[in-house]
Amino acid sequence: MVQVAVLGYGTVGSGVVKVIDTNHDRILEKTGVDLNVKYVLDLRDFPGDPIQEKVVHDYDVIVNDPEVQVVVEVMGGSEPARTFTARALEAGKSVCTSNKELVARHGTELIALARQNHASYLFEASCGGGIPIIRPLRTSLTADHIDEITGILNGTTNYILSKMIDEGLEFDSVLKDAQDRGYAERNPEADVEGHDACRKIAILSSLAYGKRVDFTDIYTEGITRITSADIRYAKAMNKTIKLLAYSSRQDDQVTAMVAPYLVSKEDPLSAVNGVFNAIFVHGNMLGDAMFYGQGAGSEATASAVVSDVIEEAQVIGRGVVSYWKPEKQVLADVSGTEKQFFVRVTGQHDASALESVFGPVEIVDAGIGGETGFVTARMSEAEYQKRAAQTEGIVSMIRVRG
Amino acid sequence: MVQVAVLGYGTVGSGVVKVIDTNHDRILEKTGVDLNVKYVLDLRDFPGDPIQEKVVHDYDVIVNDPEVQVVVEVMGGSEPARTFTARALEAGKSVCTSNKELVARHGTELIALARQNHASYLFEASCGGGIPIIRPLRTSLTADHIDEITGILNGTTNYILSKMIDEGLEFDSVLKDAQDRGYAERNPEADVEGHDACRKIAILSSLAYGKRVDFTDIYTEGITRITSADIRYAKAMNKTIKLLAYSSRQDDQVTAMVAPYLVSKEDPLSAVNGVFNAIFVHGNMLGDAMFYGQGAGSEATASAVVSDVIEEAQVIGRGVVSYWKPEKQVLADVSGTEKQFFVRVTGQHDASALESVFGPVEIVDAGIGGETGFVTARMSEAEYQKRAAQTEGIVSMIRVRG
Repeated sequence: MVQVAVLGYGTVGSGVVKVIDTNHDRILEKTGVDLNVKYVLDLRDFPGDPIQEKVVHDYDVIVNDPEVQVVVEVMGGSEPARTFTARALEAGKSVCTSNKELVARHGTELIALARQNHASYLFEASCGGGIPIIRPLRTSLTADHIDEITGILNGTTNYILSKMIDEGLEFDSVLKDAQDRGYAERNPEADVEGHDACRKIAILSSLAYGKRVDFTDIYTEGITRITSADIRYAKAMNKTIKLLAYSSRQDDQVTAMVAPYLVSKEDPLSAVNGVFNAIFVHGNMLGDAMFYGQGAGSEATASAVVSDVIEEAQVIGRGVVSYWKPEKQVLADVSGTEKQFFVRVTGQHDASALESVFGPVEIVDAGIGGETGFVTARMSEAEYQKRAAQTEGIVSMIRVRG
Repeated sequence: MVQVAVLGYGTVGSGVVKVIDTNHDRILEKTGVDLNVKYVLDLRDFPGDPIQEKVVHDYDVIVNDPEVQVVVEVMGGSEPARTFTARALEAGKSVCTSNKELVARHGTELIALARQNHASYLFEASCGGGIPIIRPLRTSLTADHIDEITGILNGTTNYILSKMIDEGLEFDSVLKDAQDRGYAERNPEADVEGHDACRKIAILSSLAYGKRVDFTDIYTEGITRITSADIRYAKAMNKTIKLLAYSSRQDDQVTAMVAPYLVSKEDPLSAVNGVFNAIFVHGNMLGDAMFYGQGAGSEATASAVVSDVIEEAQVIGRGVVSYWKPEKQVLADVSGTEKQFFVRVTGQHDASALESVFGPVEIVDAGIGGETGFVTARMSEAEYQKRAAQTEGIVSMIRVRG
């Protein structure tokens, strides 16, 4: 029997208990792993809940119990999660987590600490919720040189954009609706400003390119400036708008960015709607691949956490997982990356007037008066910024994927 | 250094050599596995090809060489692939394959033989080409009770259907075009009659449900009877047509079927076009997930084969992969499975006339004269057959997914 301690009985923690309760016998039959939740650490008590008798308030009970082999850290945030994780690893217990904040900030040091103590630090659930992506990158896409990862990695923003697109609504009203439904936090900044997606693409990029990508180096824009007018233009172009967390590698030069993009209907990412997430991967031999599923939610995320617990239980004392080197992956400045830009400027302009500044453009008619929308040719971010600086009345700019 | 022998220098075999050549150093850096192709077995010689000096015509050279640790069987077909695989396993060499024919027919016995000889039989590339699906099912979706797998598992038929839909063409002319482009075999029966997809869903179902699913038990229909008129109706319903390989489990009752289905545009499988494949999986905790990528092609398939070689190289002498129990999974008759049916009958009928036989129906107007198309309510296959038998002039029937 593998004794598990769950740190935090919130959304994911209660899901972990539920997954182990519901599927215990099937997991045992399928994998030979007999899981038992011995402790749940929480500040609260849960009278009437079957786990009440397992609740402890003192982490020492867990870390000092030699029976506990795997610690599930699903508290979120940096502290005390970091300290608790480090103490578990130092005690030779492996840790499985959904805490992208902690993995993005301190993953490299915690992986090293795990290795020193012959334990593992596993975080399948930190990116893409229930979607298997960390383990496939680590164990399936091993024959490939990965040169691009692009994810729809935040369910809240994808829900908001999907709803704005389907119903023609403005950001603020959809955000309020999403908050009322529990799809968005009362303080939505981490989601809508792209910070959450940024942490996740940092983790995935570290794994794919083999060195530590620091999320604070990643240029990040959120979706708060997207309007229903932008969406009308997108529809006129037969495209959709997605918040993409993107990174690519060319000749060992890695760039990364989180920003809203116009995505064509032929792109498999365009069909990822509502709270779903997807991760597109390109390999030099594999070509295009995509992993799709529920990027959040109690049970889906917990399913990924428990798959880590099972992996760890199967290899206890035998194997330690390696991910990336501790050395920092220097990111190339995004100003050198090339793409097309969709731009809205006030006033009616014909193509020739715009082309004197931007070079060849394609005017987009979305039936919106008093302004002109157009798509530039492919150019670098720096080139675009230079040209935009010479232009009065830019209403908005959205990058074009592809 | 891990010495590899490649059996068959065809599409996939040459891809395997290319993947190892191109990515050797990156694989070594990333995984610590130093791969070398020592032999290529083929009846032919390849003068001028860098692998010519590795070509052998006698399998004994390979099976008797103690340096060879992993045999890559990418010959296809049952014999001599089966005999060669068995001999390698008996010699304690692990075998990695893309041969779905062999895995579907003899996988269970070859897995057992591998186990007896402390070797592994790995077949990531047998389903979905480069898409990681076998390993995710085996190592990532372990916490879940999988209750449905639905795949677009055959690139040839998906290409043909996509082209019929995009261009309004008939099956025969698109097939001919696909043959000219090399997307379809000169003898296309295995693809267009659904046999290839049937073998793959048998493998995936065995893995997901834990017992041997025999592909000969699976009801299979191909796409040869789909016409441009069917596609006009599909468009009128805002749906598309896909050849789906489907299996589900309810209360330990497993059903499986390969058939063309009408798929709604909201379904993530509807956006899988051209030669791409996808596998949709539903778990009781995970919810919906989908794996998407290139279902065929030399390099993509080889990428999956080499990922197996790398896995095997990492565990040589340490671990043996288990998949499913040798006992047979009895399939429930599809006649009990319920769904909606889209039906075309000759002549103009109003709903009430049809409803006297079929119960509630929804008429579909695709502007096609001399016939009537309609969708039934949800009913069992048996119920549909009974009602269809009372109806004159049925032109076609296509099942509706969902």
